[in-house]
Amino acid sequence: MRGIVLGFAFAALSAVSAAAQQPAPPPVAPIPADIQRNVDRLQAAALESDLAWEIVEGLVTDIGPRMAGSEAEARARDWSVQRLRALGFQNVRIEPFTLPFWQATREEAHIVEPGARPLVAAALGGSPSADVTAEIVRFTSMAALEAASASAVRGKIVFIDEAMARNQDGSGYGPAVRKRGQCAPVAQRLGAVGCVIRSVGTDPHRFAHQGGSSRQDAGVSLPAMAISPADADVLQRLLPRGPVRLRLVVEAEMRDHAPSGNVIAEVRGRERPDEIVLLAAHLDSWDHGQGAVDDGAGVAIITAAARLIRELPRRPRRTIRILLAGAEENGLHGAFAYAEAHLGDNHIVASESDFGAGRIWRFRTNFSEAALPYARAYQQALAPLLIAPGDNNAGPGPDLIPLRLRANVPLVELSQDGTDYFDLHHTPDDTLDKIDPGALRQNVAAWATFAYLAAEMDWEYRQREQ
Amino acid sequence: MRGIVLGFAFAALSAVSAAAQQPAPPPVAPIPADIQRNVDRLQAAALESDLAWEIVEGLVTDIGPRMAGSEAEARARDWSVQRLRALGFQNVRIEPFTLPFWQATREEAHIVEPGARPLVAAALGGSPSADVTAEIVRFTSMAALEAASASAVRGKIVFIDEAMARNQDGSGYGPAVRKRGQCAPVAQRLGAVGCVIRSVGTDPHRFAHQGGSSRQDAGVSLPAMAISPADADVLQRLLPRGPVRLRLVVEAEMRDHAPSGNVIAEVRGRERPDEIVLLAAHLDSWDHGQGAVDDGAGVAIITAAARLIRELPRRPRRTIRILLAGAEENGLHGAFAYAEAHLGDNHIVASESDFGAGRIWRFRTNFSEAALPYARAYQQALAPLLIAPGDNNAGPGPDLIPLRLRANVPLVELSQDGTDYFDLHHTPDDTLDKIDPGALRQNVAAWATFAYLAAEMDWEYRQREQ
Repeated sequence: MRGIVLGFAFAALSAVSAAAQQPAPPPVAPIPADIQRNVDRLQAAALESDLAWEIVEGLVTDIGPRMAGSEAEARARDWSVQRLRALGFQNVRIEPFTLPFWQATREEAHIVEPGARPLVAAALGGSPSADVTAEIVRFTSMAALEAASASAVRGKIVFIDEAMARNQDGSGYGPAVRKRGQCAPVAQRLGAVGCVIRSVGTDPHRFAHQGGSSRQDAGVSLPAMAISPADADVLQRLLPRGPVRLRLVVEAEMRDHAPSGNVIAEVRGRERPDEIVLLAAHLDSWDHGQGAVDDGAGVAIITAAARLIRELPRRPRRTIRILLAGAEENGLHGAFAYAEAHLGDNHIVASESDFGAGRIWRFRTNFSEAALPYARAYQQALAPLLIAPGDNNAGPGPDLIPLRLRANVPLVELSQDGTDYFDLHHTPDDTLDKIDPGALRQNVAAWATFAYLAAEMDWEYRQREQ
Repeated sequence: MRGIVLGFAFAALSAVSAAAQQPAPPPVAPIPADIQRNVDRLQAAALESDLAWEIVEGLVTDIGPRMAGSEAEARARDWSVQRLRALGFQNVRIEPFTLPFWQATREEAHIVEPGARPLVAAALGGSPSADVTAEIVRFTSMAALEAASASAVRGKIVFIDEAMARNQDGSGYGPAVRKRGQCAPVAQRLGAVGCVIRSVGTDPHRFAHQGGSSRQDAGVSLPAMAISPADADVLQRLLPRGPVRLRLVVEAEMRDHAPSGNVIAEVRGRERPDEIVLLAAHLDSWDHGQGAVDDGAGVAIITAAARLIRELPRRPRRTIRILLAGAEENGLHGAFAYAEAHLGDNHIVASESDFGAGRIWRFRTNFSEAALPYARAYQQALAPLLIAPGDNNAGPGPDLIPLRLRANVPLVELSQDGTDYFDLHHTPDDTLDKIDPGALRQNVAAWATFAYLAAEMDWEYRQREQ
């Protein structure tokens, strides 16, 4: 008991102290009672709805993996158009574009000595075809490779053995992923013949994590591969015992122009149809997995949320636009095409669902200071879904980066719990069974809440001078 | 408090009731104080020792996977001989034999329609080379296939979609594994052109589980493959939507005679060297994984236990023999060769460690009735390691089956917790990091306890007339 009393006193003191130091929070913008009733109705309906599950189940079952520019991605577009029309969306269409195509048809890594054996490996996106055998030289970080001398690296296969931290918010990804894009160009500059990285991921399983590398831009001719954590462990344990030689084999199909496209659908606004609330996800995926959590889940969540709003007695004031971007994984091609085509549109606010299928635990914004009362109104509306208020530093999802850079569109972020996201990310294990239907429903409820309020209320989130 | 009092009274009543119904337990054979002191010393030393970890780490790092009859298995034998000699064992030797060799060099399964995509698949051991494309027909169990009519199966690929139950004692394996051996011959008899099974395993990951099938014996010409659980789910979900066609591709290297061998090492008995306490494990493994839990762990556990006994001030009375069997996985070839060569040896008792690296939770025996006081003595000696007494129905490990069948050798079973064993079993995920060093030490302590008492005491476990 004594501990509880002391704890309470301490909390009270802290509150006093914090109140003395912090500015008063912004007021909460009011939500009219009839609008709040619709929010309540949407949340209740979402928490009962299987629609998102049906959509992601359909996408991964009927289509499966959907590499950017592939025939499977084209089928996924057609599937989406058909589905979106059947769900009653308006202006359903494909906005085509082309991109450089890359897909590995063979991707093998072997220990040649000591003790010949295969490794579990994935060619990194963009890696050229190659067949090289050489001794490896290990670096514990990308920074260590950057600081290395050419004499230590020349003629060898660089092995970057850097692990990734597990975080709810995915903040381990940024530091860890740098090696995926930078290993090959830096290693090439130092005279290496190939590049192998410990997979960018957090799981303990025997999967290599796929992912794009940055070679498209600059004549990089080194093969680049990711290996599973257990295989990286073997190399780490072998190296103190003597030289280790690897053989890397990549055969990749590359074409300068392959067809892709963005799928667009709308719930047209009843009063201000030109004002756009943009909900994004991406349709393509890597090809080892099924593209269930990345990003079938996102496609399903935003589609189901918008469909629930479509079912309300009257459509909201502004237009809700769904963007199912093509060709995200290997260079944000759909995102650039969308920004190019729609730069003149009046995007009121935008958000993307591309971080798996975990429960949403936080709501962040990126609004003008004057608009923070609206952020607080969203927070209050989302509180029944056990979503905590976040700060005003929301970043764009990948498919919103070009639009944000060029048009400074206000953003919100419905932060999913990504604790296990990088266990599955870009691996064969990205499959439907990893999605929790209950968490998926909570996502739909949160997205429906956000999208409905954003489209129904006449709130503005930009600074006037922008 | 009331609950505790009532509970105590209930327990007391139950004890009285049980005592009234059950025969008195056998007496406990006494262990002399100096022997018990050695047991205590062995247990303490084992719980501090990293030797087993070093052995399994060395085997999977220096050698890696070790297919029966392969060059890697040969290197593993040489590695073992060198290591066993360095550890001070006596009579270290290889007892060679040959076996029919099988290894897949290509193993692919694809959905051809609807929606072409690859499945994660493993060719089952012994599967012939083949390239077949056909519609699939699904059965929910091996029994359902056996009851099927040829007209339902002819010209198709049979898909047995039977799941396996997760159990601490691995008892789900027997029922689930039957389809692995029987699918191809039964499907062939019914006119099918191929056979695919849901992997025999308990994990939710995108791994196909390898394993032997029974075709070696009887002219089975159908390809047989296992697919991952997520891929089996896809087939299950697709089938209600329409016909599903698969393509199975197996290329296998097969030779009638390949070299293998059993590695033997001994701690020779000081008084009765011809009386053998046999500790078994197997050296070979499937080739998708590293052979860490199956059965590098077993090799390490029995070797480390015997080595600890070797370090006692004096060797025990009887001989402790280590058998590291070759070619277990694809037909118990080493086990048969050992039984053939050593049928005349006086095996006092035998046990095998081939169920992973989980903690030992139970000690079972298969002794004559007259020897049950010795079983109780073992149980008491193992109790400090938190090992529960088991029954007298211990079965042989796989490498002891022929010896048991032909010579009825008494058995003990140090039952490991196998709750997660079939998550890893025969998959790429059978890697060193899945072994808990603490559990490995507890295994060594238990095996040292058993092996020392079996070799030091003059206990006999057979019925006289046998």
